[in-house]
Amino acid sequence: MSKGLPETRTDAAMSELVPEPRPKPAVPMKPISINPNLLGYIGIDTIIEQMRKKTMKTGFDFNIMVVGQSGLGKSTLVNTLFKSQVSRKASSWNREEKIPKTVEIKAIGHVIEEGGVKMKLTVIDTPGFGDQINNENCWEPIEKYINEQYEKFLKEEVNIARKKRIPDTRVHCCLYFISPTGHSLRPLDLEFMKHLSKVVNIIPVIAKADTMTLEEKSEFKQRVRKELEVNGIEFYPQKEFDEDLEDKTENDKIRQESMPFAVVGSDKEYQVNGKRVLGRKTPWGIIEVENLNHCEFALLRDFVIRTHLQDLKEVTHNIHYETYRAKRLNDNGGLPPGEGLLGIVLPPVPATPCPTAE
Amino acid sequence: MSKGLPETRTDAAMSELVPEPRPKPAVPMKPISINPNLLGYIGIDTIIEQMRKKTMKTGFDFNIMVVGQSGLGKSTLVNTLFKSQVSRKASSWNREEKIPKTVEIKAIGHVIEEGGVKMKLTVIDTPGFGDQINNENCWEPIEKYINEQYEKFLKEEVNIARKKRIPDTRVHCCLYFISPTGHSLRPLDLEFMKHLSKVVNIIPVIAKADTMTLEEKSEFKQRVRKELEVNGIEFYPQKEFDEDLEDKTENDKIRQESMPFAVVGSDKEYQVNGKRVLGRKTPWGIIEVENLNHCEFALLRDFVIRTHLQDLKEVTHNIHYETYRAKRLNDNGGLPPGEGLLGIVLPPVPATPCPTAE
Repeated sequence: MSKGLPETRTDAAMSELVPEPRPKPAVPMKPISINPNLLGYIGIDTIIEQMRKKTMKTGFDFNIMVVGQSGLGKSTLVNTLFKSQVSRKASSWNREEKIPKTVEIKAIGHVIEEGGVKMKLTVIDTPGFGDQINNENCWEPIEKYINEQYEKFLKEEVNIARKKRIPDTRVHCCLYFISPTGHSLRPLDLEFMKHLSKVVNIIPVIAKADTMTLEEKSEFKQRVRKELEVNGIEFYPQKEFDEDLEDKTENDKIRQESMPFAVVGSDKEYQVNGKRVLGRKTPWGIIEVENLNHCEFALLRDFVIRTHLQDLKEVTHNIHYETYRAKRLNDNGGLPPGEGLLGIVLPPVPATPCPTAE
Repeated sequence: MSKGLPETRTDAAMSELVPEPRPKPAVPMKPISINPNLLGYIGIDTIIEQMRKKTMKTGFDFNIMVVGQSGLGKSTLVNTLFKSQVSRKASSWNREEKIPKTVEIKAIGHVIEEGGVKMKLTVIDTPGFGDQINNENCWEPIEKYINEQYEKFLKEEVNIARKKRIPDTRVHCCLYFISPTGHSLRPLDLEFMKHLSKVVNIIPVIAKADTMTLEEKSEFKQRVRKELEVNGIEFYPQKEFDEDLEDKTENDKIRQESMPFAVVGSDKEYQVNGKRVLGRKTPWGIIEVENLNHCEFALLRDFVIRTHLQDLKEVTHNIHYETYRAKRLNDNGGLPPGEGLLGIVLPPVPATPCPTAE
């Protein structure tokens, strides 16, 4: 069987091949136009509408993790992002609530619908991270959780009888909260991002950015970017995964100017010039979280939800999950017969976290 | 770790929770509205636009097969569907061309672009089918080809180092051409569809429908549907894969009224009432292929391209490919260690076609 070389045509090219009809109303005896390109619309671009309809029916999963010391406003920021009480914490701090003695992982699921599109959102919180006297290896339970979700997905994927849609619990995005010290990153920040940037899409944010002046913010952001670069830490969107020049141009701007987003969150509304806005009221004024003159919350929101959400999911699937899977299958090579064969009996999730692919 | 019950909210629900602002312009000292639902647009529905952008960049594959005796206008119909010379044959019949002695499989690839969306179209022709003195088992090479594409895909899927996008050569749609005898289906028609309807999406069409009067056409269509039902042959769209009531309502209409589409193809243009149309000129008038009073070509085109193309791809992937994969992996269970382990060494494609799953 032969397969010819692909030919490309466009509508423009096609219409050039069709001669202008003569003004005479008579029916010509011979065809006006023959191959290769005939007149009219085919409907190839309706695939977009067909995909839209399918997405409206099925909805989609999105799983976001927040990591950072307690008190940096993680819950509030996620609530602000999704304009709902999606995080585990109530809006006012519960005095009964104690900081856990070790890092815990808490996942809460919600369904949010907008414009007829359903998002199955899971917010994964990591209370206890960075809150101990000794914070050595406190990134480990987090990496373990992330890998367990890859393992779950892999197990479903290699099953003989597969689900039509594999439930996706993989972490698509990890917001890492940097303390607005104005000085530099702390060793724990570097340690966490160094280990986790290979397994998950990390987006660093400077928390509670209302504590810094414009000059302090700009200087701090620059310093953080420099430190990440010096330490070889690649955050999302990673340069190497830009697919074309358009991606590169758009993402370079984010990497070189916006990152790390200096944000302020709030789940309280105030009226400013007759408009209701989310903000924080202080004696010297109201900080409006969506006002770009006040902070970069709107930039972060646009980036995570409105421009890169689908890409966060795709990079998770195509890069991080694939890396985990390839490593896992390679390690699995020496299993006894019957075991490991296309997942009929895969060994249980290891107690220690799987090493990351370097 | 705990995972809360999903909660659903809609914009309507949200706006009810936000009290109307008072007419006073003063900035209130306390927040107007708190959790659970805050004010404003999040951007969840932008996922559709993000997916559109990705599809515009990557394009999509669509592979269509035509099966039926020579002379039924298979090439012309495919050219009419895609308004281009996409089939292997030139528009005028080449006298040198001979009917092959056995069934051959010929695949030709094209890239067609419309509205900025690129379709990588492959048309798979099966010359020689039904053209022999003895046509026993002439469906076998066709089933073999279809299964080979599943095998190829499976091999790529179980590879340790996978391609980011697995090239999709699987047959998404098989147009089966029924001769417009006005009598009944022939044993070969039944034999082919009985065997192949389990492995591929078959859409039966009555070829050269301009040879029948309206009454003959209606009666013949009814008879064909009855015969398919009596013989337990399920064509696409299969009842069991309707996902919801909307699918069922839409597809029932197609199954009970449109199928099999009685079509006429043409790659020649004529002028009718000042408009250029694709048609066939006879001494008694011009048959306009896109005129629903003349034939059902436009229905078929809308069905295959404009409403069900994405579904044809999904049913191929979720049902036919999954059936092949499950059977293949089950059969593979007894392989020696090292072999068959997640596809590191899968046995070569079997010389005889794999049996279909019943």
